[in-house]
Amino acid sequence: MNESNFIISLALSGWHNQVKACSKILSELSDDQLLTDIVPGKNRGIYIVGHLAAVHDRMLPLLGLGDQLYPALNPIFIQTPDKAVESIPTVSELRNQLDTVNEKLNSLFAAMTATQWLEKHNSVSDEDFIKEPSRNKLSVLISRTNHLANHIGQLLLIK
Amino acid sequence: MNESNFIISLALSGWHNQVKACSKILSELSDDQLLTDIVPGKNRGIYIVGHLAAVHDRMLPLLGLGDQLYPALNPIFIQTPDKAVESIPTVSELRNQLDTVNEKLNSLFAAMTATQWLEKHNSVSDEDFIKEPSRNKLSVLISRTNHLANHIGQLLLIK
Repeated sequence: MNESNFIISLALSGWHNQVKACSKILSELSDDQLLTDIVPGKNRGIYIVGHLAAVHDRMLPLLGLGDQLYPALNPIFIQTPDKAVESIPTVSELRNQLDTVNEKLNSLFAAMTATQWLEKHNSVSDEDFIKEPSRNKLSVLISRTNHLANHIGQLLLIK
Repeated sequence: MNESNFIISLALSGWHNQVKACSKILSELSDDQLLTDIVPGKNRGIYIVGHLAAVHDRMLPLLGLGDQLYPALNPIFIQTPDKAVESIPTVSELRNQLDTVNEKLNSLFAAMTATQWLEKHNSVSDEDFIKEPSRNKLSVLISRTNHLANHIGQLLLIK
């Protein structure tokens, strides 16, 4: 493994650790617990599960790894806040979708080279990427890891 | 900048972004808001501020960057849970200590080379580091970034 691949493997470990921490806390929370406001008037756990499933699912096209698996999640869990949409998937469905998306990402990440991680992601133009080479796929991984950690902190308050 | 330095700069940006997000949310919360349980029976914001100050302060010796500035924080904010110690610093003192520690870390980080980031941290033995070279200073940065993101998620629920 060359040095670039080694350094990237550390960022990937950060991602994997957070995905595991998320699975762990979700396995400790009942569906009922996820249906209650964490703090009165704030998001419910179910919204966070759906939001994470949607945000991670959108990493597939963003990183050039394929189409989004569950685009129906976007209007409910990205474009609108919790409780804005009346009919939403069950906790059980969302748990499964989050697991499926994370497993798909992890298997695709395992095959990526350092060169690929340093390529531009799909929300930046070729022109802008020349000026800002930090807008690459690895930056997406790092920011999504922190986003996940952010919401895990909130889920931990339910327990 | 060589490729290793460039990749490490992305992880450092992740850290800086979280430090900024933490400053932002803390600037939006009053001392009174930080003195209330986020969720009944769970940590207060003040505990999180003190905990982050202590954990970040301990990064100085862990990364071989100097002595801890405020070791008196450890028994209150690392070794015991919230409300276990009666007399604790004020919110204002803790805000200042967290800022001071973060500023010191950031100025020291700015001078670190890729070679230094890939050196072993001070909680791993020479022997173990040979077997597990991933137990380096960069891994500490990545895990502390995720730890910070975790607690920012909780502070955001106070607002």
